[in-house]
Amino acid sequence: MSAQRSAQPAPGKSAPDSTRRSEKSRRAIYDAALALVVEVGYPKTTIEGIAARAGVGKQTIYRWWSSKADVLMEAFLDLAERSQQEASAEPVSYTFPDTGDIAADLKTVLRATVDELRDPRFEAPSRALAAEGVVNEQLGRELVAKLLQPSLDLYMDRLRAAQAAGQVREGLDLRIALEFFISPLAQRWLQHTGPISHEYTDTLVDYALHGLAPR
Amino acid sequence: MSAQRSAQPAPGKSAPDSTRRSEKSRRAIYDAALALVVEVGYPKTTIEGIAARAGVGKQTIYRWWSSKADVLMEAFLDLAERSQQEASAEPVSYTFPDTGDIAADLKTVLRATVDELRDPRFEAPSRALAAEGVVNEQLGRELVAKLLQPSLDLYMDRLRAAQAAGQVREGLDLRIALEFFISPLAQRWLQHTGPISHEYTDTLVDYALHGLAPR
Repeated sequence: MSAQRSAQPAPGKSAPDSTRRSEKSRRAIYDAALALVVEVGYPKTTIEGIAARAGVGKQTIYRWWSSKADVLMEAFLDLAERSQQEASAEPVSYTFPDTGDIAADLKTVLRATVDELRDPRFEAPSRALAAEGVVNEQLGRELVAKLLQPSLDLYMDRLRAAQAAGQVREGLDLRIALEFFISPLAQRWLQHTGPISHEYTDTLVDYALHGLAPR
Repeated sequence: MSAQRSAQPAPGKSAPDSTRRSEKSRRAIYDAALALVVEVGYPKTTIEGIAARAGVGKQTIYRWWSSKADVLMEAFLDLAERSQQEASAEPVSYTFPDTGDIAADLKTVLRATVDELRDPRFEAPSRALAAEGVVNEQLGRELVAKLLQPSLDLYMDRLRAAQAAGQVREGLDLRIALEFFISPLAQRWLQHTGPISHEYTDTLVDYALHGLAPR
């Protein structure tokens, strides 16, 4: 969910210590991790395999990350960050737009998400991680917490502001409401149930806000 | 999507010829296929492996099915059919309810889908197939065509009837509209983004029909 990811690594044991590692090794490790998960799948991707492909010792990886899941998720965040920097001459922004028009703002964000989902650099590693998350609940929950939840929080904030402005009904469970914007797109992408486009996500926003029953 | 699957095998080369094979072998092959895909995943499940586990020759399988995907999808349809027969004293019905109340009928069907998604017999093989569909577009499209599309067609028919009855707005793209009922549930299940329950799907129906914006 493009523009909403945090650019900052999370604090804690697995965060990279940029003062101690070389940028070149970090980049090689990320590239190796993403390439391997696409080629052999998540279960057969190992720290040893990533280290061999990146040309570093496996202790180099263990010094900075506690698991292959951590390496992969951070490699993925890094890829998203670089892509956004390339796509925009402006400084990268990690906020949800608020022009005062909730429909317009949702359409802007969803169009950017469509573009990201269709970006070939993202597609194969995104699918490899998402597929493993379907059968591996622990990894699935980590993917949600680290890669998806920061975006969902921004949707929630924007919907709360729209509710305060009288553009969204009072009393709704906004955590459920936001799924009308993200879930149809996610299902089309995950399950190949239909094409994704800007026109499609624009329609989702209009239908979700105004409902399917006659007014 | 529980009550909507066809009980009849599709005609054609890969359809089982029930006059020529023993019910016992068929059951053993289905059980072996579902167990293997859960244990080793789709890529490592082979016709040879299914045959060995079922105690049949692999030519027995090739006589009735053209690929492992065909065996697995039919095993899955058979499992759904047996589960529905056990769950109901009534004859199995493969239609969408039409009481004249579109909200009530959608809630009935979605509650049954929630029950099926939470049924432990389905969960592991469903997840193994769905995960492979995320990274294997050809299999993903086959899963949609054979396992999901029959249900989607019934949703479309029911929504068309509701539109004719003035309960759904004119001019909507119903293929998109139906995603508000199925996609949020699918995403929660696939990506572990939230719990699923009857109360949750009831809420989806109410929100989707009446919209998120004030009336």
